[in-house]
Amino acid sequence: MSETLGEIAARYARKARSASRRLSGTDAATRNAAIEAIAQALVAATHEIVSENAKDLAEGAAAGLSPAMLDRLKLDPSRIEGMAKGLREIASQPDPVGRILSSQVREDGLSIEKVSVPLGVVFFIYESRPNVTTDAAGLCLRSGNAILLRGGKEAIHSNRILGGIISRAVASAGLPADCVQLVQETDRALVGELLQRDREIDLVIPRGGEGLIRAVAEQSKIPVLKHYKGVCHLYVHPTADPLTAPGVVFNAKVQRPGVCNALEKLLFDKAMPARLGEEILKTLSEAGVELRGSDSVRAKWPAFAWKAATDSDWDEEYLAKVLAVREVDGLDEALDWISEHGSGHTESILCRDTAMADRFVAGCDSSSVMVNASTRFADGGEYGLGAEIGISTDKLHARGPMGAADLCTYKWVVRGQGHARK
Amino acid sequence: MSETLGEIAARYARKARSASRRLSGTDAATRNAAIEAIAQALVAATHEIVSENAKDLAEGAAAGLSPAMLDRLKLDPSRIEGMAKGLREIASQPDPVGRILSSQVREDGLSIEKVSVPLGVVFFIYESRPNVTTDAAGLCLRSGNAILLRGGKEAIHSNRILGGIISRAVASAGLPADCVQLVQETDRALVGELLQRDREIDLVIPRGGEGLIRAVAEQSKIPVLKHYKGVCHLYVHPTADPLTAPGVVFNAKVQRPGVCNALEKLLFDKAMPARLGEEILKTLSEAGVELRGSDSVRAKWPAFAWKAATDSDWDEEYLAKVLAVREVDGLDEALDWISEHGSGHTESILCRDTAMADRFVAGCDSSSVMVNASTRFADGGEYGLGAEIGISTDKLHARGPMGAADLCTYKWVVRGQGHARK
Repeated sequence: MSETLGEIAARYARKARSASRRLSGTDAATRNAAIEAIAQALVAATHEIVSENAKDLAEGAAAGLSPAMLDRLKLDPSRIEGMAKGLREIASQPDPVGRILSSQVREDGLSIEKVSVPLGVVFFIYESRPNVTTDAAGLCLRSGNAILLRGGKEAIHSNRILGGIISRAVASAGLPADCVQLVQETDRALVGELLQRDREIDLVIPRGGEGLIRAVAEQSKIPVLKHYKGVCHLYVHPTADPLTAPGVVFNAKVQRPGVCNALEKLLFDKAMPARLGEEILKTLSEAGVELRGSDSVRAKWPAFAWKAATDSDWDEEYLAKVLAVREVDGLDEALDWISEHGSGHTESILCRDTAMADRFVAGCDSSSVMVNASTRFADGGEYGLGAEIGISTDKLHARGPMGAADLCTYKWVVRGQGHARK
Repeated sequence: MSETLGEIAARYARKARSASRRLSGTDAATRNAAIEAIAQALVAATHEIVSENAKDLAEGAAAGLSPAMLDRLKLDPSRIEGMAKGLREIASQPDPVGRILSSQVREDGLSIEKVSVPLGVVFFIYESRPNVTTDAAGLCLRSGNAILLRGGKEAIHSNRILGGIISRAVASAGLPADCVQLVQETDRALVGELLQRDREIDLVIPRGGEGLIRAVAEQSKIPVLKHYKGVCHLYVHPTADPLTAPGVVFNAKVQRPGVCNALEKLLFDKAMPARLGEEILKTLSEAGVELRGSDSVRAKWPAFAWKAATDSDWDEEYLAKVLAVREVDGLDEALDWISEHGSGHTESILCRDTAMADRFVAGCDSSSVMVNASTRFADGGEYGLGAEIGISTDKLHARGPMGAADLCTYKWVVRGQGHARK
């Protein structure tokens, strides 16, 4: 009863480590059977899940959550079916464990292999959407990792019932129930304690607002994979296709403005036809996008309801139907601007000159670089990863959308017949 | 003249970042030409290098460095030839940049590629051996990275002349001289300042004593790849081949006791023939290895000049002709012991039962796992990487010996024809 937060953290972490050691010896069929068992158990428990979710929705409404937030939080039979389907997609991906990444047999008979293996224990911290709970559990089981799930307070009833269903399903498939542990406590300080357990936990993935992610990165003694924000740029080259350009910009900005791969900054080349700029701005304006422009774009296209962009506009992630627009003098200035103001998430060029597009691809140091395509494609599902546990703008280990294979490391396996080094 | 350490650090870091942007657009032939230019310049400058190195040797002798340390520090014409040869081996490796790691064209015509790219700027902190200077510069050029080299104070004269030769050779090949910068100042606080420059520097690799590495890891705002120490274990299974076992243990412990892949702990299975233990211990004893044993091994083989092992012996990296020996009750106990006391560097099993060996490989969470081979093989040269910039016991990004390919990350490149997301 008088267990301290440090003791609670130690208990979660040690159980996860112990489960991970047992998991590392299992084969893909066993781990996939556990994923399938979760999928079936979810659908079977639809009624209970919806009823626990209703508590979160009621508390959220009382706490004044926005309709958009409440919609993200909501689970209904069709969304629960979708969660089960997502799990089956994860199970259908190639096995990320035990892949031979390189191998050789030397002249002296020594065999040297580089083999993919699970990381061990993943601590996943996330906000809001409860379907992320099952995706994350599925990706970790697929890759042979134990996972500690710490969801947002606003989804605690939903996550508790999901966590229980998952753990029981995992156990029914013959794996340790502790492979997937939902952190039951909502105390924030417990996260801080867990972030100190670098002996047991191998990787932390925080997903949510920038404030949450910075707090995690600063406190953690464990390596963290993350992106802080997505300040995505689209650069319209003079050779951009006028037929498709307005549609791509519209899609990037308007289709889902609240997500990290939505467009935030539009760069017009000075040499671009004014007519093309007008088409693009008209499409955005008619969709109700608030346009914030530099002096030169406001002067060039005065017919639109501009706001003047301030210095802070160029680094801000709006996550709303707001777009900052400026002119750049050629591709190099576009790259310099992105290097200074981008967040390394996703950048796009609209351009029919292949050599120029290639220069943009080579010179743009972002995790995803698009040519003649919407920034919205930067996503694990779109990239064929089955699902994603997050997006990394870090450069070490994994970059961009991360699937099950990104939850693996490797070991070198050397086999001899009594070999001694010369 | 009154430049602060912070300003000096900013200057080095910004120059490196700027050089790295220019490097990222170069092709492998240009970068290899620079590596060849360094190799030629080194040999041409043999006389000056030896004469600057003599200053380090004289100062080192006056400061009381051990003969072993002085030998590591020493450069002579044959070692300089060896440095040039090492560079040419690095250049002969496959190009690590621009590799297509995965690619697909979706039904809607969108092309998605995952392409290897340089990390950007590497800050390399190391002690003693000046040949590491040219290896590190070569590996970074090969992988398209700019490098900041910070060598040990005891090698400063050697490193300064090497740094100058390298930068001039790089410039003569048409690349920015700042691709390779040797930090000229020996002030330790400057390292601390450089470790804050996470806007310009992408990766820190410290190589040296555990104290140096811990200090770097604690201060750094930049990701660090490292190993603290190599507490390498060898487990002798009852089915070990008695003909080769003594030679492998001898090689692992005695061939070069001062390095991180040397054997430090020997685990005898309780069911192992006593005769085999005697053979192994005799070989070690005759080579002058100090044996520190648990109670049971001292009782079982009383004929040897044992010291009693204390608790701290099981976690210590001796880096000397000292070996701790204990008994374990079967393979699982060996794995538990290694999990508790190992450093994740390299572990080996001597065993002719393939199923047992496979269980050891699966259950041992170290960066290199050996079967019937000496721990001394855990090395970039032995693994065919051409050279190594370090060994990582971390699990993210690179693990074990790290070559040029480990100095790359990737980006996702998506090409469409005006694609918008559905």
